[in-house]
Amino acid sequence: MSYTAPVKDMLFDIEHLANIAQVSEMPGLEEAGLETAQAVLEECARFNQDVIAPLNVAGDKHPSSFKDGHVATTPGFKEAFAQYVAGGWQGLQHPSEFGGQGLPKTIGAACGEMLNSANLSFALCPLLSDGAIEALLTAGSDALKATYLDKLVSGQWTGTMNLTEPQAGSDLSLVRSRAEPQPDGTFKIFGTKIFITYGEHDMAENIVHLVLARVAGAPEGVKGISLFVVPKFMVNADGSLGARNDVHCVSIEHKLGIKASPTAVLQYGDHGGAVGYIVGEENRGLEYMFIMMNAARYAVGVQGIALAERAYQHAVAYAKERVQSRPVDGSINASAPIIHHPDVKRMLMTMRAYVEGCRAMATTAAAAYDAMHHHPDAETRRQNQAFYEFMVPLVKGYSTEMSLEVASLGVQVHGGMGFIEETGAAQYLRDAKILTIYEGTTAIQANDLVGRKTARDGGQVAKAIAAQIETTEAELGESGSAAAASMAARLKAAREAFIDVVGFVAGQTKASPNAVFAGSVPYLMLAGNLVAGWQLARSLLVAERLAAAGTDVDFMNAKIATARFYAEHILNKVPGLRDSIVDGAESVTALALEAF
Amino acid sequence: MSYTAPVKDMLFDIEHLANIAQVSEMPGLEEAGLETAQAVLEECARFNQDVIAPLNVAGDKHPSSFKDGHVATTPGFKEAFAQYVAGGWQGLQHPSEFGGQGLPKTIGAACGEMLNSANLSFALCPLLSDGAIEALLTAGSDALKATYLDKLVSGQWTGTMNLTEPQAGSDLSLVRSRAEPQPDGTFKIFGTKIFITYGEHDMAENIVHLVLARVAGAPEGVKGISLFVVPKFMVNADGSLGARNDVHCVSIEHKLGIKASPTAVLQYGDHGGAVGYIVGEENRGLEYMFIMMNAARYAVGVQGIALAERAYQHAVAYAKERVQSRPVDGSINASAPIIHHPDVKRMLMTMRAYVEGCRAMATTAAAAYDAMHHHPDAETRRQNQAFYEFMVPLVKGYSTEMSLEVASLGVQVHGGMGFIEETGAAQYLRDAKILTIYEGTTAIQANDLVGRKTARDGGQVAKAIAAQIETTEAELGESGSAAAASMAARLKAAREAFIDVVGFVAGQTKASPNAVFAGSVPYLMLAGNLVAGWQLARSLLVAERLAAAGTDVDFMNAKIATARFYAEHILNKVPGLRDSIVDGAESVTALALEAF
Repeated sequence: MSYTAPVKDMLFDIEHLANIAQVSEMPGLEEAGLETAQAVLEECARFNQDVIAPLNVAGDKHPSSFKDGHVATTPGFKEAFAQYVAGGWQGLQHPSEFGGQGLPKTIGAACGEMLNSANLSFALCPLLSDGAIEALLTAGSDALKATYLDKLVSGQWTGTMNLTEPQAGSDLSLVRSRAEPQPDGTFKIFGTKIFITYGEHDMAENIVHLVLARVAGAPEGVKGISLFVVPKFMVNADGSLGARNDVHCVSIEHKLGIKASPTAVLQYGDHGGAVGYIVGEENRGLEYMFIMMNAARYAVGVQGIALAERAYQHAVAYAKERVQSRPVDGSINASAPIIHHPDVKRMLMTMRAYVEGCRAMATTAAAAYDAMHHHPDAETRRQNQAFYEFMVPLVKGYSTEMSLEVASLGVQVHGGMGFIEETGAAQYLRDAKILTIYEGTTAIQANDLVGRKTARDGGQVAKAIAAQIETTEAELGESGSAAAASMAARLKAAREAFIDVVGFVAGQTKASPNAVFAGSVPYLMLAGNLVAGWQLARSLLVAERLAAAGTDVDFMNAKIATARFYAEHILNKVPGLRDSIVDGAESVTALALEAF
Repeated sequence: MSYTAPVKDMLFDIEHLANIAQVSEMPGLEEAGLETAQAVLEECARFNQDVIAPLNVAGDKHPSSFKDGHVATTPGFKEAFAQYVAGGWQGLQHPSEFGGQGLPKTIGAACGEMLNSANLSFALCPLLSDGAIEALLTAGSDALKATYLDKLVSGQWTGTMNLTEPQAGSDLSLVRSRAEPQPDGTFKIFGTKIFITYGEHDMAENIVHLVLARVAGAPEGVKGISLFVVPKFMVNADGSLGARNDVHCVSIEHKLGIKASPTAVLQYGDHGGAVGYIVGEENRGLEYMFIMMNAARYAVGVQGIALAERAYQHAVAYAKERVQSRPVDGSINASAPIIHHPDVKRMLMTMRAYVEGCRAMATTAAAAYDAMHHHPDAETRRQNQAFYEFMVPLVKGYSTEMSLEVASLGVQVHGGMGFIEETGAAQYLRDAKILTIYEGTTAIQANDLVGRKTARDGGQVAKAIAAQIETTEAELGESGSAAAASMAARLKAAREAFIDVVGFVAGQTKASPNAVFAGSVPYLMLAGNLVAGWQLARSLLVAERLAAAGTDVDFMNAKIATARFYAEHILNKVPGLRDSIVDGAESVTALALEAF
């Protein structure tokens, strides 16, 4: 199944929702206007469609394999990665100081979506390198930066994040890996890390592991964790590769999906200790890791959008081709392509609306990220940071949960053929299930939303967003169209439900933590649903204006129809969620543990 | 992961919701009282826990395999099936005249749930035999009955349903397999059938295929389809096996789940024609097949409940064992089993409430099935038939859709471990996805609910159910408890939404078929949600009464808590669905086909 990048929809969001014209007025982003966006997206689309997408099925059928400490990736991956590196794609969003192109996230996120649509398993390698680059940029010493950044940014070397241990998953306070200080200022690292994505592979000559471990004598819990760079091969002073370091892959996992992506168990220090270099200060490892995590969380949200888009395209192609049964309205007097059946349309519209809604949300968040780093005004930077940080758990949690639903609908559109692996629809469902889990489960995202993003500031950021939504409602009211009126009514009901829930969360988190956290995931789903719907409401207004002006009328009408579908079939779920959260907490925790 | 049959919950439903005491007053069911139910369920539990459940993971790891026309099932399946046959389990619900035990569906459905919880792939073989038995009982000649029924009922031979062809899935009007009449009254069958569950295997000495085909010269479309028996081996006059018939397995499918169950492509007549015997009258095949289908659809609904129960048990066991993070309420000052975290409880309660709700719905429907066949009063039989037939698409559609959600939550509870196949949680998700597809997709169930079950009688049966629900609301009102009040409020809102939707469906199906069918699946989900919730409301009332009398207080309190959770977190989704159906049809079909 081929993939066609939705460049037009991406550019619509970038131009009209993220307002790239404003982004490119900020210092350092002057060259990143709409024309650049268009040129980059078109080039990126070609590369991913032609080079990366064709390897997606092969990766599922012939996963990475492990033998004697080495991992062989799917045939073709190594060559494709070489092309990825040669094209400079790894450096797209990274500073030109280290060889990157310094493009804004507003553009980079769309490129990330394409790569992940093309091949989720392949895309994970660059995604993890991005995290390592981010951590080194933030907290690495000049020496570490000089040694590693150029090569990570070019893609010559790749990066990993080593957090999880068998007993320490979501709960990093339980990390046991240890770091022993050496006289030369380095550390020796010992321990076992699991679930390390691309922890071992054959696509790059070196792998730069970012590893959480405890320095001997450090405090217990999360305040005693430090971050280290542990290269697979030592690096000589001239940048050439030296001896093999004492970190070894001992196995890779047999997984439900993303099978081409090797998930490694890494053993540190079994032969005397792996040489590690501390990143930043001792005992601040978790803080730095969260910088990587926040970038990675946003990126995983984009993976959800990417996977859902691919599943949607696959399902549309099948629905247009598969002939079965007459349309119920008698419009065709013979068996017809199943896209003529209302329920198939309902499924496809659900998939489409989720994808467009989440893409709009993610693109808007990306623009805030760019403004928080580049806007000349400090107060504007602060506001954009608050908005972006509120968005991260929504982009991650909501977009990935929706991707599961979309991938499942994709199989359903295929009927019995969907259950046959050769059809390809099932792979998306298997791949999707990791997205609600890694880089923090949906519940972990929801904890972040409740604790750091809502309760801490008494719901101020949330209320500021609600006020912006109210403005959009007013604009919808002025339109006068049936679609705008329908959207306005649902948006208002959803916003009011959101306000209630924010009040409940802000008011009760300290006093009744069980009650609030019982509704944390429903709150995340409510907020994500609302914000995605809001962005589609903004899309609807833009599309009505442009359609009226005769610009690309068919496309604009489709944007309007999709937004209206979202309002009437997805956004309208929000009030029910409000009731579950505000009135239903008691029944979540009522059952005695022994009764389970 | 072991399985423990939920015998207590099943008996609660059988005693208090299905009212087994009344069932056993009906002619022919006198021995099927509560004591019998208990004895059968306990024996059934032991058998499935000890013999069948341990083969579930093996079946997934070592699926059925195909070579040279033969299918080898998973090691251990053949021996387990022999024990299944020896125990007389195949004949549980079939007439004693043919060697069965003649037990009511009220009991048989619970046994079916256990078998499917233990091993969905294994259970499919007996499930298809049940369908073949049902068809022969309904329409088979005395000669066919004499030749085949005893051996199908004992399990010595197994049965299959052959509907699907490459071009004919949901749309059976496209069936092309043909039947040529022979001078001796038999037919020669030619054609290709796909997706034939246990179409070839090594667990029984003969396989009895029930096959849809067209007699030469028959009308086009569904009115020209006849039903045939085609045995794998011919049967001699003395009942011994004769020559191999001309039906051959040419391959089996590589599937997402239920891997141990062989899904065969069967080729009929490549060597001169397969000998077939007509079942009933020519051109009435679809009608007979629907008898099998209706039995099979109910059974697939029970598969959904069964799979969800198993996934729930797996998740509970992990949540009690896995230690990670401190509880948010500070009740434990160290990392604790994750079942202490509110969101894990929310997931487990969601799984539990769905399972108990759907089981209660299915058990109530089973009692109606028994009454429609056994009640002495014709009007009561008619009413029960109408109720049962309304329930079939709900039991099938709603229970299987919920099983997907439950299986996905089951993986989620396991976090990263859930994505690793060795953990076992992912198998349930892979297995579950077939349930919303085979024996008619959810959309096909919804078409049945809209067309034959709602529009045809102007919504009368639906309204009669709503009236019964209103009575339950009144009873809840008399309770005075907070749980009953919460349930009553949600049940009322859901029932009112249901009434609106039924009015819309009954009123608009002819005039605006696209609008009605655009909401057909949401209508099914709404109705299933409501009826399952209603049965939990009845459970709540019984449990309150028994708890007040001091009977099994912990169990009763758990029933109450679960019912309340259902009301506040699942049943409360109904009003949102009403809006999508009644107000949202236009946006489902608005997008031009070219815009997809």
